[in-house]
Amino acid sequence: MTNKLFFTFEGPEGAGKTTVLKMVVSKLQEEGKEVIATREPGGSVIAEEIRQVILNPAHTEMDAKTEALLYAAARSQHFVEKIEPALKQGKLVLCDRFIDSSLAYQGIGRGLGIEGVKSINEFAIGQRMPDMTILFDLDPKIGLARINAHKNREINRLDVESLAFHQKVREAYLKLAEEFPERIYVIDASQSLEEVFQNVWKVLKNAV
Amino acid sequence: MTNKLFFTFEGPEGAGKTTVLKMVVSKLQEEGKEVIATREPGGSVIAEEIRQVILNPAHTEMDAKTEALLYAAARSQHFVEKIEPALKQGKLVLCDRFIDSSLAYQGIGRGLGIEGVKSINEFAIGQRMPDMTILFDLDPKIGLARINAHKNREINRLDVESLAFHQKVREAYLKLAEEFPERIYVIDASQSLEEVFQNVWKVLKNAV
Repeated sequence: MTNKLFFTFEGPEGAGKTTVLKMVVSKLQEEGKEVIATREPGGSVIAEEIRQVILNPAHTEMDAKTEALLYAAARSQHFVEKIEPALKQGKLVLCDRFIDSSLAYQGIGRGLGIEGVKSINEFAIGQRMPDMTILFDLDPKIGLARINAHKNREINRLDVESLAFHQKVREAYLKLAEEFPERIYVIDASQSLEEVFQNVWKVLKNAV
Repeated sequence: MTNKLFFTFEGPEGAGKTTVLKMVVSKLQEEGKEVIATREPGGSVIAEEIRQVILNPAHTEMDAKTEALLYAAARSQHFVEKIEPALKQGKLVLCDRFIDSSLAYQGIGRGLGIEGVKSINEFAIGQRMPDMTILFDLDPKIGLARINAHKNREINRLDVESLAFHQKVREAYLKLAEEFPERIYVIDASQSLEEVFQNVWKVLKNAV
């Protein structure tokens, strides 16, 4: 059995992905593993510039297909510049969001379809899918409530509107997990951070 | 027979595409046609920003796949914002370079393969291929000589290096013309501008 190297963390905002990823990295480093934690756009200058085009609030007329292609372009550059070289050196790579985010958010959330978004992302990263993906599954109501609690604000009309969007994204993620059960592990992210971390660690420690 | 609306002009630098396109637009307007002349990124703010990321000379480490995805993203936005609305209004659209440039330059010139580049561009523009494409075929030596004459400089090592690249691109264009004979018309661009214009006009006037 070859050890897995390339791990991605997926799920909605408010699910604890970023915090748990840091906890896992510390634990792996304690065990003497060489590990790189990254997130898109991943510190690549080019990918960062692409991200700025995507996120520029003035770009209200951006087409959903353009957005999906820009994410794929940033992913390609991040992958070539940072992830692939680390994997070739035998390092563990933990990435906060990757291809499944595009499949769920652009493919289903934006209604572009999984197949098209998958094909442009396969163009971007070839056949190098993550070895293992941890899906932080969470009712979007809880995720939004956590984010809102953090920002000390009430749930407003925008949050309610986006709830339907986030519900679609959750269902898309769970469908992907059904489609790729050998790659995607679903973790119940409604528990405490410590419980979520323990569950993630249980899955991950046997893979590395 | 339905009239064609969407025309693209393809070929290397120095082949006279841009000049002849302007001559054709004037002629069409004289005949009372409503016509839009455009070129990528086509005056779309978002597409222009994407173009700046592509062309930034500091981006020497840009991956070829990233470049191809960025061109597709810019094309998608230009298409949605400018070309598609004009076509829906029944206007003639003449575009200086379009999908075939990506197939020839990125697919063959950069060695990414036609199929992959075609698939990301089909994602970008759907099934809406140009109704007619005029390919300005020219020996790259002549094209480079014309450009160099213009800039008052000798052919240098860089030009010689790029000659092989441009030769591959020419062959790719001609192969596309073989593959899509009903769409792509090959024009001998080694002749004088007036002769080239007359030949283009002969093909085009029967189509609109």
